[in-house]
Amino acid sequence: MQPLPGFRDFRPDDCAARNYIFARWRDVAGRYGFVEWDGPLLEPTDLYRKKSGPEIIDQLFNFIDKGEREVALRPELTPTLARVIAAHEREFKKPLKWFSIGPFFRYEKQQRGRLREHFQLNCDIIGEKKIDADVELVCLAIDVLRSFGFTENDFFVRLNERLAWADYFAKKGGDVLRVNDLYHVIDKIGRQPREITEATLEGLNMNPQDVWNFIEDPSWYSGFFAGFKNLLAERGMDRFVEFDPTIVRGLDYYTGIVFEVFDRRKKLRAIAGGGRYDNLIEQLSDGAISMPALGFAMGDVVLGELINEAAAARDQMQKAIAAGRKIDVYIVIAKEQRRADALAQIQQLRDRGYRVDYPLTAEKVGKQFQTAEDLGASLALLYGDEWPQVKVKNLATREESLIAHQALLDSVAKFFNVSASA
Amino acid sequence: MQPLPGFRDFRPDDCAARNYIFARWRDVAGRYGFVEWDGPLLEPTDLYRKKSGPEIIDQLFNFIDKGEREVALRPELTPTLARVIAAHEREFKKPLKWFSIGPFFRYEKQQRGRLREHFQLNCDIIGEKKIDADVELVCLAIDVLRSFGFTENDFFVRLNERLAWADYFAKKGGDVLRVNDLYHVIDKIGRQPREITEATLEGLNMNPQDVWNFIEDPSWYSGFFAGFKNLLAERGMDRFVEFDPTIVRGLDYYTGIVFEVFDRRKKLRAIAGGGRYDNLIEQLSDGAISMPALGFAMGDVVLGELINEAAAARDQMQKAIAAGRKIDVYIVIAKEQRRADALAQIQQLRDRGYRVDYPLTAEKVGKQFQTAEDLGASLALLYGDEWPQVKVKNLATREESLIAHQALLDSVAKFFNVSASA
Repeated sequence: MQPLPGFRDFRPDDCAARNYIFARWRDVAGRYGFVEWDGPLLEPTDLYRKKSGPEIIDQLFNFIDKGEREVALRPELTPTLARVIAAHEREFKKPLKWFSIGPFFRYEKQQRGRLREHFQLNCDIIGEKKIDADVELVCLAIDVLRSFGFTENDFFVRLNERLAWADYFAKKGGDVLRVNDLYHVIDKIGRQPREITEATLEGLNMNPQDVWNFIEDPSWYSGFFAGFKNLLAERGMDRFVEFDPTIVRGLDYYTGIVFEVFDRRKKLRAIAGGGRYDNLIEQLSDGAISMPALGFAMGDVVLGELINEAAAARDQMQKAIAAGRKIDVYIVIAKEQRRADALAQIQQLRDRGYRVDYPLTAEKVGKQFQTAEDLGASLALLYGDEWPQVKVKNLATREESLIAHQALLDSVAKFFNVSASA
Repeated sequence: MQPLPGFRDFRPDDCAARNYIFARWRDVAGRYGFVEWDGPLLEPTDLYRKKSGPEIIDQLFNFIDKGEREVALRPELTPTLARVIAAHEREFKKPLKWFSIGPFFRYEKQQRGRLREHFQLNCDIIGEKKIDADVELVCLAIDVLRSFGFTENDFFVRLNERLAWADYFAKKGGDVLRVNDLYHVIDKIGRQPREITEATLEGLNMNPQDVWNFIEDPSWYSGFFAGFKNLLAERGMDRFVEFDPTIVRGLDYYTGIVFEVFDRRKKLRAIAGGGRYDNLIEQLSDGAISMPALGFAMGDVVLGELINEAAAARDQMQKAIAAGRKIDVYIVIAKEQRRADALAQIQQLRDRGYRVDYPLTAEKVGKQFQTAEDLGASLALLYGDEWPQVKVKNLATREESLIAHQALLDSVAKFFNVSASA
């Protein structure tokens, strides 16, 4: 009688919190002129096999379907995006700014901030190779988090240029064809013992001391960093970003800037991550279409933890949820003989778009008013001895009045128009 | 480079149509006081094995996961709902009115109106055994379709009481333990040759002529039908409903009223279907909790076809999509020296919640204005020689004015406040 390990039931409170996150995601993406799209939840396993890197493949929920196809629940969205763009790019003006919100799946060990089914916001810009697109994307990630009530005291972006490592690696005599192996080692710094890191580096003919030196002082790449910081400063967003050579991301397809968003106290896993993948569309279209691209994904799980740990963000969420849940009108049926009249009125109110509730079966009047309060109703309409008048109660002010039932619709409309503009 | 057969990519136009459907579903469920919840997309296969009936089991997307668990992509929501209610019912006041919107999966032959991944609205009432709940649910299904612009000329509800068949079957000497087999035969009438139907009925010791007689004249159950029709008439909803003994639904867990919604021309498959399943929660909780329940599901595929075939509904959708896609402000960068000033302004406008777009890199002014039109912008702000003034163009009226850049935010806010109340 439990969901599978790593999967969640979303009871109404959980679902409201999830929808609150989705609404903020959708709102801020819209402010940036991003348009929504989505892909299938199940894809051919081959879509991930070569492009995503070993970590994702090990963690696939993959199987053989009844038609003997190798299929996988999607672990990430970027390969699907590249597939869709490669097939349909002529339909769209470039650059594209697309976002998507949906579930993703990874079969991995359960730990804090990681589940087997989670939800992500994905935002991508396709068809623009200039750094202005990178800045736009990073600012979007920042503004998404700001919309939850977070400030630079709560989170920050760690950003790097992968090519800085590639250049350095080449300069030090590394094998360019094995640069992805270098990225995997750098990506795991801090998550595995220093001895293992150093041994792996030596296996790549890279002197570990050179790596530590670069991390300590990446000054020969500081021109890039300074330029990027200036572009952020134009928008007043530089305070959110730090440059960090240890950020390279675990996925093989990244080709340029990469970034991850962390809570300032560094207590949680990454809240979001992304970067440039200028070659992926070309690879997936077998060379037919070449198009620069970049994107990031933000998950709901770590974000949800961050919201719950920050009083201001949590309050903002709870207020939004409470406001979104309120109904407009509760119908109190004091006499069962009036039920048919009440139902006719309920139908008319709902037809006009009001959120209306009532007791499905006979209940005491006091209990009905309690339910009206619990549901956050603005008005209660009481059908009882006053018929053909109806008692209208403003549940905020406790004011009551008697209205002829034929005049009720107008009266309710007037109340909500006044309330809305008040 | 294709999605799997039966799976869909949702490019922005498709996604907007899908979101339009979701928004109408969510809106009308809210008017009825239903609250949103959701379950996992993957569940233990056992959840479906005994309760859903043979048709669903044959069509499961099921597999063994890396932890040796038998799991299945959810084909329907009701067993998950029963599981969640059985585990948590004490947290909630009864009756519950819950709805959910999400993807479902069936491995079945591809045909019109059926896909392997589709989306459903599910609405359920839990904890009320009286017929008033059945009427509320049927009215909700009707009002959901009305919200798309459909009338009684476009669709109708075919409704039946399963117990009518059970009673008749018992009366004619049928084996009560095999009543589900009878339902399966009735469910397939019209989808399989009459000879097969009759042979199967004979295998159940049921005289086929008795079945045809009942369908022709179900008068001995007309008391129920008349009562139900009266309750619909109180709300003015009886014109949408017809009683039809051949509607029994293919799932084994239904126990009372069942219904399906069809297009009037009967060209399409069922748009929605549901009914009472008063025993399912008890079965899934091994008898620990007994709670009456009823619900329906409506899929996005047949509904989408119906919308596209009905001019009024299609126009309503296209207008809503166009309105939802519009941005507020487009920033025209006529001189690249002004880009930094423009970006500072863009950041401030987006901070205030406006939907703002601009060219990521240098573009001709004429092309920028074209993009502003294409994106449905209300205002264009031009950054050029007029600096430190900015040219503001109302794209609907073509009026232009020059505003000092420090005064722009106030000026834009005033414009949108006036527009909103106009």
